[in-house]
Amino acid sequence: MEEIQRGAPAGDWLAGASAVAVITFELAVEAPPGRGDLSVLSHDAYGSRVGIPRILQLLTRVGVPATFFVPGVTATRAPHTLEAIAMAGHEIALMGHAGTRLTAMSRAEQTEDLERGLAALRERGHNPTGYRAPYWQLTQHVLEQLSRVGLTYDSSLMDDDRPYRMRTSGGVIAELPVHWSLDDREQHPFAAEGAMGMQVESSPRVLEQWTAELDAMRGTRSLCVLSCHPVVAGRPSRVAMLEQFVDFARHAGGVRFERADKLAQVVAVPRRP
Amino acid sequence: MEEIQRGAPAGDWLAGASAVAVITFELAVEAPPGRGDLSVLSHDAYGSRVGIPRILQLLTRVGVPATFFVPGVTATRAPHTLEAIAMAGHEIALMGHAGTRLTAMSRAEQTEDLERGLAALRERGHNPTGYRAPYWQLTQHVLEQLSRVGLTYDSSLMDDDRPYRMRTSGGVIAELPVHWSLDDREQHPFAAEGAMGMQVESSPRVLEQWTAELDAMRGTRSLCVLSCHPVVAGRPSRVAMLEQFVDFARHAGGVRFERADKLAQVVAVPRRP
Amino acid sequence: MEEIQRGAPAGDWLAGASAVAVITFELAVEAPPGRGDLSVLSHDAYGSRVGIPRILQLLTRVGVPATFFVPGVTATRAPHTLEAIAMAGHEIALMGHAGTRLTAMSRAEQTEDLERGLAALRERGHNPTGYRAPYWQLTQHVLEQLSRVGLTYDSSLMDDDRPYRMRTSGGVIAELPVHWSLDDREQHPFAAEGAMGMQVESSPRVLEQWTAELDAMRGTRSLCVLSCHPVVAGRPSRVAMLEQFVDFARHAGGVRFERADKLAQVVAVPRRP
Amino acid sequence: MEEIQRGAPAGDWLAGASAVAVITFELAVEAPPGRGDLSVLSHDAYGSRVGIPRILQLLTRVGVPATFFVPGVTATRAPHTLEAIAMAGHEIALMGHAGTRLTAMSRAEQTEDLERGLAALRERGHNPTGYRAPYWQLTQHVLEQLSRVGLTYDSSLMDDDRPYRMRTSGGVIAELPVHWSLDDREQHPFAAEGAMGMQVESSPRVLEQWTAELDAMRGTRSLCVLSCHPVVAGRPSRVAMLEQFVDFARHAGGVRFERADKLAQVVAVPRRP
Repeated sequence: MEEIQRGAPAGDWLAGASAVAVITFELAVEAPPGRGDLSVLSHDAYGSRVGIPRILQLLTRVGVPATFFVPGVTATRAPHTLEAIAMAGHEIALMGHAGTRLTAMSRAEQTEDLERGLAALRERGHNPTGYRAPYWQLTQHVLEQLSRVGLTYDSSLMDDDRPYRMRTSGGVIAELPVHWSLDDREQHPFAAEGAMGMQVESSPRVLEQWTAELDAMRGTRSLCVLSCHPVVAGRPSRVAMLEQFVDFARHAGGVRFERADKLAQVVAVPRRP
Repeated sequence: MEEIQRGAPAGDWLAGASAVAVITFELAVEAPPGRGDLSVLSHDAYGSRVGIPRILQLLTRVGVPATFFVPGVTATRAPHTLEAIAMAGHEIALMGHAGTRLTAMSRAEQTEDLERGLAALRERGHNPTGYRAPYWQLTQHVLEQLSRVGLTYDSSLMDDDRPYRMRTSGGVIAELPVHWSLDDREQHPFAAEGAMGMQVESSPRVLEQWTAELDAMRGTRSLCVLSCHPVVAGRPSRVAMLEQFVDFARHAGGVRFERADKLAQVVAVPRRP
Repeated sequence: MEEIQRGAPAGDWLAGASAVAVITFELAVEAPPGRGDLSVLSHDAYGSRVGIPRILQLLTRVGVPATFFVPGVTATRAPHTLEAIAMAGHEIALMGHAGTRLTAMSRAEQTEDLERGLAALRERGHNPTGYRAPYWQLTQHVLEQLSRVGLTYDSSLMDDDRPYRMRTSGGVIAELPVHWSLDDREQHPFAAEGAMGMQVESSPRVLEQWTAELDAMRGTRSLCVLSCHPVVAGRPSRVAMLEQFVDFARHAGGVRFERADKLAQVVAVPRRP
Repeated sequence: MEEIQRGAPAGDWLAGASAVAVITFELAVEAPPGRGDLSVLSHDAYGSRVGIPRILQLLTRVGVPATFFVPGVTATRAPHTLEAIAMAGHEIALMGHAGTRLTAMSRAEQTEDLERGLAALRERGHNPTGYRAPYWQLTQHVLEQLSRVGLTYDSSLMDDDRPYRMRTSGGVIAELPVHWSLDDREQHPFAAEGAMGMQVESSPRVLEQWTAELDAMRGTRSLCVLSCHPVVAGRPSRVAMLEQFVDFARHAGGVRFERADKLAQVVAVPRRP
C-alpha cells in the first residue's frame, strides 16, 4: 500500500465566499416491511416515512440544494424516494451497497459492495459521482477503486476542514472532509438498543455547536459538511434547527450552500483557460 | 408474518388544534415490600410513594387529563394507587403483566403476559383500551392480539409523529407513536446500577428539549406523546418542569391536551354521518 | 426479613421553613502515602490535601454547618483532618469501615464493617449518631443493626424527599433520603479509569440542576440533602458553585441549613411536652 | 517504594498575579503515512495537518507562549513540526517515546521509554526540561528517574491545583498539576471507535467550564494548566474558544500566561539573594 499524494483544490472553491456549507444526508438500509423486529423496524422507518418528505419540504422552503448518500439496497427498495429527492434538485450519491462497514470485508467483498451499490443506483437512472463510506470507515482499497468505477469525490475522511485533491492509483479524487462535531447522530441514540445508554442532546444545544463551528469556519475559510440522518434530522425540532442553521448562515454572511458534486468538480478538475 | 396495512386516522384528530399533546406515565413493577435489595427497593419505591401523589396533584392543578400505563403485577400490588388515578379522571391503560421485554418471550408467553395483565386490571374494575409494550419493544405477535382481547390502540412505535391506523390480522388498531427525545428516562439513570455511569441531565435542559419539540410540532401538525416515569417525573424540579411545559403549551397556543384513549377513538373509528 | 414499619417525623422538622438543606460530604478511603498506583493516589489525594481545607474555609465564610460521613479507615489514617472538621463545628458521621459495598459482604462481614468503623471513630474521640452506606447501597441487615450500636439515623435511601421514621427490629431510625440529582459525582468522573469514558459537566450546569431542585423543594416542603465529595467539590469552580448555591437559597428565602444529626433528632425523637 | 517528600514552591510563582495559566498541548503519535487503517489515520492526521499550524497562528495572534508535550516517536517522524513550534517561541517538553501507558510496562521498559524519548528530542536539537506521562498515568519509578536524565518538572499529577516541589530519590522535581475538567479530550471522542458512544460537547459549553474554573482560580490563587490536543483544539470553533478563553482571562485581570518551563524553574530552584 503506497501513500496517497495530496494537493490543493484545482479550482477556486471558495469563489469569494468565506466558507462553503454542504448539507448531506445519509439514507439508512431499512429492513423490508413485514420482516424483522417490529421495534427496530419502527424506529428506523421514521426516516423514510416522515423524515425525508419533511426534509425535502424544508430544503425547498429555504432554497438550499443538498446531497443524499444512498446505499444500493435502499435504492432498490425505495426507488420512489430517490426519485423524489432527485426531482427536487438534490444530488444522489453513493454509500456502498449493504450499508455495512468496509473494514469488516475482504478486498474482494469491498469491491463487490462498491460495484453492486453503483449498479443499483444506475439501474434506477441515477448516476452518482461521489462516495461516502458507511460509518466513515473508508479503506485505502475502496479509495483506489473510486476513479475506476467513475466516481470523482469522496466524503468520509477527517484530516482537514477544507477540501483537497488526492492522486490515487486509479486517478484524481476530490475529498470533502467530515467531522463528528457536525454529525447529528453523535447527539442522538441511533439504534434501538442504544436507547437505554445514551442521552438525547437537546436541539438548541446541537444548533449551538453547529453554528459555533460554522461561525468560526468563516474565519478559517473552511468547508462545513453537515452530516444528517433522516431518522434524526426529520424530527420536528431538528428540522426547525436546520432551518435556523441556514438562517444563521445567511444572517452572518459569506457562506455559500452547495451540493457536494458541484463543489467536488471545482476541487478535482483544473479549469481550462 | 405479513406486512401490516396502515392508513390515515379515521377522524379529524387535530380538530382545529395545531398539535395534540398526550402526557403518559409508565408505572414500574416494584418489588413487594420487605423483599429484595434494599437499595434497589428504595430507589424504585419513590415512584409510587412520592411521585404518583405529587403528579396527581399537579395534573389536577393544571387541569390536564393524562394516561397511565400499568403492568398487571402493579395493578395487583397497588390497587389503591390505580383507584386514585382513575378517580382523578385519568386513564388506566395496559403495559403487559410482568413489565418485562416481550422480545425475550416465546409467542405463547407473550400472549399469556398480555392476557394476564389485562385480567389483573379488569379484576380491579379497570377496563383499558390501550397498550404500551415494556421498553417500547412491541412484537408483531402482540400487536396482532390487541384487537382480539378488546384493545383499540397501541403507543409503542416510533415510525411517525402523527397518529395512524393499522389493519392487523385481528382488527383495526390506532397507533399513538412515542419517541426517545420525549421520554424522561433518557435524561436520567433509572436503575440502581446505572447510577455510576450515566449523568443526570438538569431539569431546565430537559424542558428545553421538550418545549423545542412541542413548539416545532405546532408547525408540523404532530402528536406529542410525553413519556414519563413517576420515579423520575415526581422529583420536585421535574414536576415543576412539567408544569412549565403545560404553561409553555398554553402560552404558545394551538395545543390541545388529551387522554390517549379519547384521541385513539377518533383515530380508529370512522364517525358516522 | 420482615418489612420495616415507617412513619412521619416525630417532631416539626420544618419548623417554619419551606425546605431544609443538609450539605453532606463523603470522605474517601485514600491509599496510604507511598503505596499503590501513583496516578490513582494523585487523583484521590486532592480531596484531603486541597478539597477539605478549602471546603472548611467556605463553610466558615458562609456560616453553614455541614455533615461529614467518614469511613473508619480514613478516621485512622487522617485523624487531624477529622479534628479540623469537628473543631469547625461540623458533624462527623459514619460511612462504615473500609468504604466498600455492603452488598458484596456476608452478614457477619457487614456487622464487622459497621462495628470496626464505629470503633475507629470513637477511638479518635468522635461519637457519630448517623450512618451512610458506601455507594448508597444499604442492606436491611445493617439498617437493623444501627440502633443496637447506638446510631439514630441513616442517610442512604432514595424513596422520599422528606425525612421519615423507621421502626426496625433494633429500634427507631430516622431517614434523611438522598438522590442522584443532588450528588456531585454523578456529573464528574470519580475514578482514574473513568477519566476516558465520562464527561465532566460544567459547574454552571450542575448549579443549574441543584438550584432548580432546591427551588422546587420550597414548594413541595422537602429535604434537600446535597451529597458532595471533596475530590470533586473542592475544585475552585465547584467551591464557588457551592457558595452560589447557599446564596441562592438565602436569596430565595425559606430555606434552613442544618446538620444532619440535629435534623435527625427532631425526626426520631418525640419531644416531651 | 518510599514516600516522596513534598514542599511549597521555592520561589514566588504568582509574582503578583491572582492565578497563572499554562496552556499545554499534547502531540499524538500518528501512524506513518500510507500504513494502517485509513479511517483512523484520517482522524488522527487532522492534528498535525491542520490543528498545529492553526494553533500556532492563534498563539502568535494573542501573544501567549505555550508548552507542547511530544512523544519521541513524533519528534522523529515530524521534525519540521517541532521546529515550527520552537521557532514560534514555544516550549518543547517530553511525553515519553511511544506515547503509551507506563503502567503497562516493566520498570526497565519505563526507563527505556523515557530515555529513548529524550534522546529523540535531543537528536533534533530540543532540550526539554519537563515531562508529562501519557494518559496522565505517571509511575513512581519514572518520577524518580526524571532528575537523573536532566528533567526538572512533571505535569501529570492531580493532587493539587497549585504547583509544588517534590524531593525524589533522584533530586528535586517541580510539579505543575493537571485536571480532567481542564482537558479538551474529556468533552470530545478521541478515538475512531469512540465516535459512536460518546457525545461531542458544544464548544460554548466547554468554554463555560474552563472560564468558570479560571475565574474561581483567581480567588483560590491557583495554577490553571489547560491540556489540549491539536486533533480537538485545532477545530475552528475550538480555536475560537481558546481565543475567547484568553480574552476572558485578560478582561478579568490578574491572570499571567506562562510557559511551563519558566514557571517550573521558579517552583524548583531557590533564588539566590
